[in-house]
Amino acid sequence: MSTMRAVQVVGYHRRLEMTELPVPEPTGPFDVVVKIGGAGVCRTDLHILEGQWAEKSGVALPYTIGHENAGWVHAVGSAVTNVREGDKVIVHPLITCGLCRACRSGDDVHCETNQFPGIDTDGGYAEYLRTSARSVVRIDDRLEPSDVAALADAGLTAYHAAAKAARRLSPRDRCVVIGAGGLGHIGIQVLKAISPAELIVVDRNPDAVKLALAIGADHGVVAEGKQVEEVLELTDGHGAEVLIDFVGEGGSTAEGAQMLRRAGDYHVVGYGENVNIPTIDIISAEINFIGNLVGSYNDLQDLMALAARGAVTLHTVKYALDDFQSAIDDLDGGRVRGRAILTP
Amino acid sequence: MSTMRAVQVVGYHRRLEMTELPVPEPTGPFDVVVKIGGAGVCRTDLHILEGQWAEKSGVALPYTIGHENAGWVHAVGSAVTNVREGDKVIVHPLITCGLCRACRSGDDVHCETNQFPGIDTDGGYAEYLRTSARSVVRIDDRLEPSDVAALADAGLTAYHAAAKAARRLSPRDRCVVIGAGGLGHIGIQVLKAISPAELIVVDRNPDAVKLALAIGADHGVVAEGKQVEEVLELTDGHGAEVLIDFVGEGGSTAEGAQMLRRAGDYHVVGYGENVNIPTIDIISAEINFIGNLVGSYNDLQDLMALAARGAVTLHTVKYALDDFQSAIDDLDGGRVRGRAILTP
Amino acid sequence: MSTMRAVQVVGYHRRLEMTELPVPEPTGPFDVVVKIGGAGVCRTDLHILEGQWAEKSGVALPYTIGHENAGWVHAVGSAVTNVREGDKVIVHPLITCGLCRACRSGDDVHCETNQFPGIDTDGGYAEYLRTSARSVVRIDDRLEPSDVAALADAGLTAYHAAAKAARRLSPRDRCVVIGAGGLGHIGIQVLKAISPAELIVVDRNPDAVKLALAIGADHGVVAEGKQVEEVLELTDGHGAEVLIDFVGEGGSTAEGAQMLRRAGDYHVVGYGENVNIPTIDIISAEINFIGNLVGSYNDLQDLMALAARGAVTLHTVKYALDDFQSAIDDLDGGRVRGRAILTP
Amino acid sequence: MSTMRAVQVVGYHRRLEMTELPVPEPTGPFDVVVKIGGAGVCRTDLHILEGQWAEKSGVALPYTIGHENAGWVHAVGSAVTNVREGDKVIVHPLITCGLCRACRSGDDVHCETNQFPGIDTDGGYAEYLRTSARSVVRIDDRLEPSDVAALADAGLTAYHAAAKAARRLSPRDRCVVIGAGGLGHIGIQVLKAISPAELIVVDRNPDAVKLALAIGADHGVVAEGKQVEEVLELTDGHGAEVLIDFVGEGGSTAEGAQMLRRAGDYHVVGYGENVNIPTIDIISAEINFIGNLVGSYNDLQDLMALAARGAVTLHTVKYALDDFQSAIDDLDGGRVRGRAILTP
Repeated sequence: MSTMRAVQVVGYHRRLEMTELPVPEPTGPFDVVVKIGGAGVCRTDLHILEGQWAEKSGVALPYTIGHENAGWVHAVGSAVTNVREGDKVIVHPLITCGLCRACRSGDDVHCETNQFPGIDTDGGYAEYLRTSARSVVRIDDRLEPSDVAALADAGLTAYHAAAKAARRLSPRDRCVVIGAGGLGHIGIQVLKAISPAELIVVDRNPDAVKLALAIGADHGVVAEGKQVEEVLELTDGHGAEVLIDFVGEGGSTAEGAQMLRRAGDYHVVGYGENVNIPTIDIISAEINFIGNLVGSYNDLQDLMALAARGAVTLHTVKYALDDFQSAIDDLDGGRVRGRAILTP
Repeated sequence: MSTMRAVQVVGYHRRLEMTELPVPEPTGPFDVVVKIGGAGVCRTDLHILEGQWAEKSGVALPYTIGHENAGWVHAVGSAVTNVREGDKVIVHPLITCGLCRACRSGDDVHCETNQFPGIDTDGGYAEYLRTSARSVVRIDDRLEPSDVAALADAGLTAYHAAAKAARRLSPRDRCVVIGAGGLGHIGIQVLKAISPAELIVVDRNPDAVKLALAIGADHGVVAEGKQVEEVLELTDGHGAEVLIDFVGEGGSTAEGAQMLRRAGDYHVVGYGENVNIPTIDIISAEINFIGNLVGSYNDLQDLMALAARGAVTLHTVKYALDDFQSAIDDLDGGRVRGRAILTP
Repeated sequence: MSTMRAVQVVGYHRRLEMTELPVPEPTGPFDVVVKIGGAGVCRTDLHILEGQWAEKSGVALPYTIGHENAGWVHAVGSAVTNVREGDKVIVHPLITCGLCRACRSGDDVHCETNQFPGIDTDGGYAEYLRTSARSVVRIDDRLEPSDVAALADAGLTAYHAAAKAARRLSPRDRCVVIGAGGLGHIGIQVLKAISPAELIVVDRNPDAVKLALAIGADHGVVAEGKQVEEVLELTDGHGAEVLIDFVGEGGSTAEGAQMLRRAGDYHVVGYGENVNIPTIDIISAEINFIGNLVGSYNDLQDLMALAARGAVTLHTVKYALDDFQSAIDDLDGGRVRGRAILTP
Repeated sequence: MSTMRAVQVVGYHRRLEMTELPVPEPTGPFDVVVKIGGAGVCRTDLHILEGQWAEKSGVALPYTIGHENAGWVHAVGSAVTNVREGDKVIVHPLITCGLCRACRSGDDVHCETNQFPGIDTDGGYAEYLRTSARSVVRIDDRLEPSDVAALADAGLTAYHAAAKAARRLSPRDRCVVIGAGGLGHIGIQVLKAISPAELIVVDRNPDAVKLALAIGADHGVVAEGKQVEEVLELTDGHGAEVLIDFVGEGGSTAEGAQMLRRAGDYHVVGYGENVNIPTIDIISAEINFIGNLVGSYNDLQDLMALAARGAVTLHTVKYALDDFQSAIDDLDGGRVRGRAILTP
């Protein structure tokens, strides 16, 4: 039995540890084993180490962390027909059943019996990952696994929210994006590619606003206390038809609601604080608060189509798998511009 | 110049007063004057008298109250082509411009320059009311103005929410209705008529639950502390796909959110308290909070089609216009079963 | 190895023959073997015997016919989790892959690699049928396989068209149904259950029109030459917003198009003749011709929810499996009222 | 009373004639008189002169021709609030009632009592045109009436079809455009601006294909007999999810249908021949034929938003109003590249 290196959570409030494990094999008929080409290092990984997910995931330690993965198909189960050994793939973060009502409706993210490698079962800070045929998306020859890995979760969430928001956006509409960081700057690229709406990006960081303008935002607003007024000015005093909030803390929801036009949609993506709004405000302006989780398998296919034509790109900093601790430390210390990627 | 009786707000925290006023005439090309056949007495009218709408409406006193009106066309402006003298009509509560983007999109409730007779201009506790060609809906010969007047606002709001909710309801879905009172019992009839979903009605009042079951609810839950558990039991432990909250106070939103399935829609109609929900709950269950205001002109047409075939009925108690004070007192004292209607 | 009786196509323009075959076993991980409780005898089966499907299906003779099946789960493959032995089920007519874009979107009818038991592989005129976990729908305790078997294909097609049509139907709309025969009378029941539109049913057979009125049609039109005029009279001279054509031959499409309102939807379900319409008529009235194939797995679930509450029922005539030739002869001779069902 | 020059149809199969007429005044409350800045010369104008519209329009001769108009507001009726004298506007081709169900639903093109200046009442080959407040769209300061006039009808039709088509287009979809002429090359620009789909443009004219590629098409196919095969090759052998046919004659519909994927949408815009397709092909592939007329008022607003940001441009050749005959002759002789515009 061949072995591989894997980075595991061995205890909360402890450092990750490199270990040697058997290379996973396809045991179920739909299993797919992926040779990892890139594994994104995500802020959620820091939260896992702090124990924030311990109860929610119920995962038994030790286990291998890493939920943003891409690579090459290494081995497949007996019933797999959609990929074959050697295929370049990105890995949808969930393993879904394919049989429940949600799965049968294309809404697999709400699968009643899903698994989440890297969160509640072994993930991708390793040389190999076991996932499912239902989770692998072949990527274009022009794309490299280590370049797109971070699109598997962070990018996919941004795509999902942007695509849902875009359904009602016409050339006369304005879409406010709160937060031009990791998710936001992908959301902006997606909105630019799939919607004709005018984009107004709000962020506290002037550099983030500059980047937003460079990648397609029509207006940038540095949030220095007058952001509500500035957005209202840019929207004839009425507010925007749609708002996507990639922040969801520090007062963003109360402020964001003031930037919204009557009958507008408020997309909640970032989280932290409460939405706390009088029902009379919700009904008198007839506004909607719309939840957004990670995207579906179809969303990931669509996002990869945009990535293949260069419409969505991501700045990445690569680390060898052995240097996982540096990646974690750099992320924790705010020293990563774009996304940190482990490459075995 | 002929005159008419009209009941006016002459001061806040004072009683309404009957007065003599000139019969309104069509002055604008699209004006329509309606001879009132019935004017609903609504809880909002009590709130107006308490001054709760004074600032919001900015209305100058004295003015004629009454925003739920139906009757017969008495006179029309020069450009009116959709109704003629003698037509039996129900009156949409808003006068809208017809030219702004909302009006041009069928979403006239969000008209940028609307008027609201009975709230910010003269209403229908009177013998005649001036409204607009854009606000009158001809009703079926089988319907009487005094029977349907209360559908003009309360009923229209319930219809609007039910119709929006029904768009996603299939035969396998469950729809929870919180509150089987004035709006709720219309909402239940509408849902029964336009949707194949299973209806679960929750109310604190056992009699209201009984009525709900009699008019089409599939399950009734008396809210005595275990309503969340009971709804979960009725929905395989997962909650309902859609919930319509006609209460919106006394803790209904927090409880209601627990009755909602992943990816579910929470329709806010009743108001009073705040929606106060952690963003993480909104995103992790990917649920939506959807605002609902009164229905559009099209909604009123649709509701009248249902009423014409007997699919939506309303219990009413009629009072002569001169007995307006009794109607107000009975409503305030909780002695009206169904809706109080003034008939000149 | 245990054996079973099965009725097979042994040659075109020849009679079906009963034979003894091994009971099928689950060989693939998602296989499900169903003990047949009822197998619908369908006009398509007559066409198969006439060789009309020979080239299209490419099936090798002999094979077991029968594509409308229901029964009890007899055995399951290793990866099946949604049903277990003994479950009462109806069988979706297609075996689909679950991995192609169509399957991942809930649109499994357009699966790129589907199989169609009874058409291109062994079907259900037998004691047992092999299908897939993706094809079986558990049915309510109140339903019997032999009563619902014909809903698996004919009923499912009618449901699918009615459900698509109903998406735009509001209480003011009129829906014309052409053809109140096998599919039509299910479509009428479905429309009644899921839509508030007024139903106008057109058929050449006065008895079919009577039945239509008895099961919920609002208006019945016997097609004796003036059907277009009669429908126009019933629709204010403008035609209906939606039309579902369950006939599709004998001039129905040209006539039907004249019954359609501007911006109307013409649902094609029955087939035989060509749609042959000037493009100028399509664009100047801005009408749509919408194709309808059999329904999806989700559609079948929804239809079974309606059937469970008695909203859709079917008249059936049962034959023992050994009497298959009588069933075929009766169907061919027009002596079956409702649907013929073989019960092993 | 001041007078103006106007070009009129004085008889069929006769030349247009310049005449002197009173400047129109706003007589109805919603009338708007526009000083013409540009009037498009359209192929329909040639057909009018040939008498093809005589019976359909029922217009009494002589009358002023010209249905693609833009300019400046010259005078307004008493009830007009959306524009004022001097506003730069483009004119929607229809005058609609604002009161019928279609108008109240934002679908004003299907207004039950519309007028069509230039077709059934006086149009814009003149110095002034009378239209309605419901028909004028203010345009951006950066746009000139004579540059955008041809967007009022030809461009609006292309926008409407492209926008309807785009509702279902995702990044993985392919959209075939048949015909890259007048309408087609606007449709291509619109699709590029509002949809992420891959665009495949088919035209007989190699220069038109070149132009299409220059303005955003992803693939160009010169129709020389192998266009169906070439499109299939570009779409993995399955055909495109959506096709927009701006030709509608010379066999395009039969060919186009072969380029369409299962469950695909065929948008009919150009006209001439019949759609003549077996119902069995429509249902077995479950494809849709979707009619497209000119766009709504909202569509024109959206199109002007795209034009204001330079996303849709039009090549025009300008003629003085007095040179109307040259414009007609050049168009008839195929000597106009882009659109001919009369400028008073």
